[in-house]
Amino acid sequence: MSEINLKKLSEELGLSISSVSKALHDSYEISTETKKRVLAMAEKLNYQPNPFARGLRKNKSNTIAVVIPEIANNFFSLVIDGIQLVAQQKEYHVLTYLTHEDYINEVSTINHLQCGRVDGVLISLCGETASVDHLINLQHTGVPIIFFDRIPETMECSTVTTDDYESSFKATEHLMLAGCKKIAFLCVSRFLSITQKRMLGYQAALQKYKIAFDPKLIIQCNNDNISNQAILKKLLSRKVRPDGIFASVEKLAISTYYVCNDLKIKIPQQLKIISFSNLRTASLLSPSLTTITQPAFEIGKESAELLFRMIKKKNLGGYMNKIVLQSSLIERNSTVK
Amino acid sequence: MSEINLKKLSEELGLSISSVSKALHDSYEISTETKKRVLAMAEKLNYQPNPFARGLRKNKSNTIAVVIPEIANNFFSLVIDGIQLVAQQKEYHVLTYLTHEDYINEVSTINHLQCGRVDGVLISLCGETASVDHLINLQHTGVPIIFFDRIPETMECSTVTTDDYESSFKATEHLMLAGCKKIAFLCVSRFLSITQKRMLGYQAALQKYKIAFDPKLIIQCNNDNISNQAILKKLLSRKVRPDGIFASVEKLAISTYYVCNDLKIKIPQQLKIISFSNLRTASLLSPSLTTITQPAFEIGKESAELLFRMIKKKNLGGYMNKIVLQSSLIERNSTVK
Repeated sequence: MSEINLKKLSEELGLSISSVSKALHDSYEISTETKKRVLAMAEKLNYQPNPFARGLRKNKSNTIAVVIPEIANNFFSLVIDGIQLVAQQKEYHVLTYLTHEDYINEVSTINHLQCGRVDGVLISLCGETASVDHLINLQHTGVPIIFFDRIPETMECSTVTTDDYESSFKATEHLMLAGCKKIAFLCVSRFLSITQKRMLGYQAALQKYKIAFDPKLIIQCNNDNISNQAILKKLLSRKVRPDGIFASVEKLAISTYYVCNDLKIKIPQQLKIISFSNLRTASLLSPSLTTITQPAFEIGKESAELLFRMIKKKNLGGYMNKIVLQSSLIERNSTVK
Repeated sequence: MSEINLKKLSEELGLSISSVSKALHDSYEISTETKKRVLAMAEKLNYQPNPFARGLRKNKSNTIAVVIPEIANNFFSLVIDGIQLVAQQKEYHVLTYLTHEDYINEVSTINHLQCGRVDGVLISLCGETASVDHLINLQHTGVPIIFFDRIPETMECSTVTTDDYESSFKATEHLMLAGCKKIAFLCVSRFLSITQKRMLGYQAALQKYKIAFDPKLIIQCNNDNISNQAILKKLLSRKVRPDGIFASVEKLAISTYYVCNDLKIKIPQQLKIISFSNLRTASLLSPSLTTITQPAFEIGKESAELLFRMIKKKNLGGYMNKIVLQSSLIERNSTVK
């Protein structure tokens, strides 16, 4: 263990710890010559100030936290890529926390972040978040927070989202123009802001084309691929089967493909599918998958940039910012007429 | 800004800061009654100790770092999932750093971690890491390090890897048994331990079947999908075209699929493909992709568990551990005879 701390450095130099510390902080009490000697030795021994001492002194951690439901997910990993790009430019460290869609996890993570560990928080809510007390508490401690994609609807806050309502309207309309009349809407949690907005877009499109809304076509799935496949198998084995699927998250489209393979349902002839997705292989699937693709990397970048603006300004008072980015509908073979 | 620190807590209680601190640390100098009062108030005000003060006092950060080349990658995001699972159980925080396959990034990240910011480091090397001086320096400061998947060959260290040589041997043999005679080996960097081992496995299999090794069939790609597609287009437009592709990383298989679509080369009839891959959609591709699938989640879990054992033991001296996990070859349509 050859860790170089102030004490070792001062021993090597034959100076007091306080003189070395003052020299490193460029104090007027120390001569230029001594400062040079100290810096040269610090460099030679690869001395690096203890970040905890520095954090305590400056009341700044140079660290941000990213709280997300899951990481093995094309959307969230691209978002993190964007966040990391900005954090690296700002020389910030990034702590990542996974809630695994669990509310208790989310609350305990957020409570841990109240005590100065981080200078700011980027969060996408878990599917179970019904109460936002933990988030309001964090906000009250003065830690800047940006919500992205999955945001709380009942809280004054800064957010980065996409045009979920409009793109879902377009997705549903796209299926109807391809001939679908019974379109099932697949979601993971009704609590989520994105589920609600996407479902509203879906309903508005049905209304435009005078198709009655059928609550039996709203299919609530969960996080477990196996049980989702069972749910979808049941749906696609109904006497009156849907002729279109609108998956509000990518993994439900993938599960639908697997179930169609099992049940020998032909896509797009017997069932058309569109999905929110950032899958790199969407166009290589059999058949290629029509997607609504969110600008995930940009969401991460914009969220981080907004957070750093808030960190810099410190006292932002009631300053709130809502950034909305556009998704794109990419037509492929899974919805061909 | 209503942050509750020791000072505010002591004001509320009408006690000195040092008494409050002693009470919170269960000191014998403080009466049980006072301790109870302090704890009740601390809970009421949601007091949480400053992690920097605690880190400085205990010389412990309760934080580990994960250094990886990229995050928007099925293998690495699954590894992180495994790491996070263990870290969460141990109540540790996880800092994530992306090197983007850049050596300078890796060196500067590692140098940042020398000063006590983290209690341990999990790293998978970037594709350019030729010198390991920065890693040896970190090891000398006493910070436990575990290398996973992409490891340094010239350094005494603990590692978690998979059976790269054996599984590459099997992959190449699988292509030859399916009738391939000219198998191209696609890689991202020759520096990488995994490239070297996978290439050795490939060469050994060729030798077993008495096929001469042709260096023109070793195709060095990089991190940019567009330029990789250009490289692969050139390869697949050669007068004497390969009849098999062994992609040592997933993204090169995906690029090959795109190029085959463009050039109207039929998989598997005209070209068979096998790839190291953790793609969830491998069996949904057109055609489904034969893969060597690494136990990525397990790699993360094992690496983190090993790291925490090292952190706990502290003085491990020359203790080194090499864990090797098995990958599985999953046959699908891209290699059908």
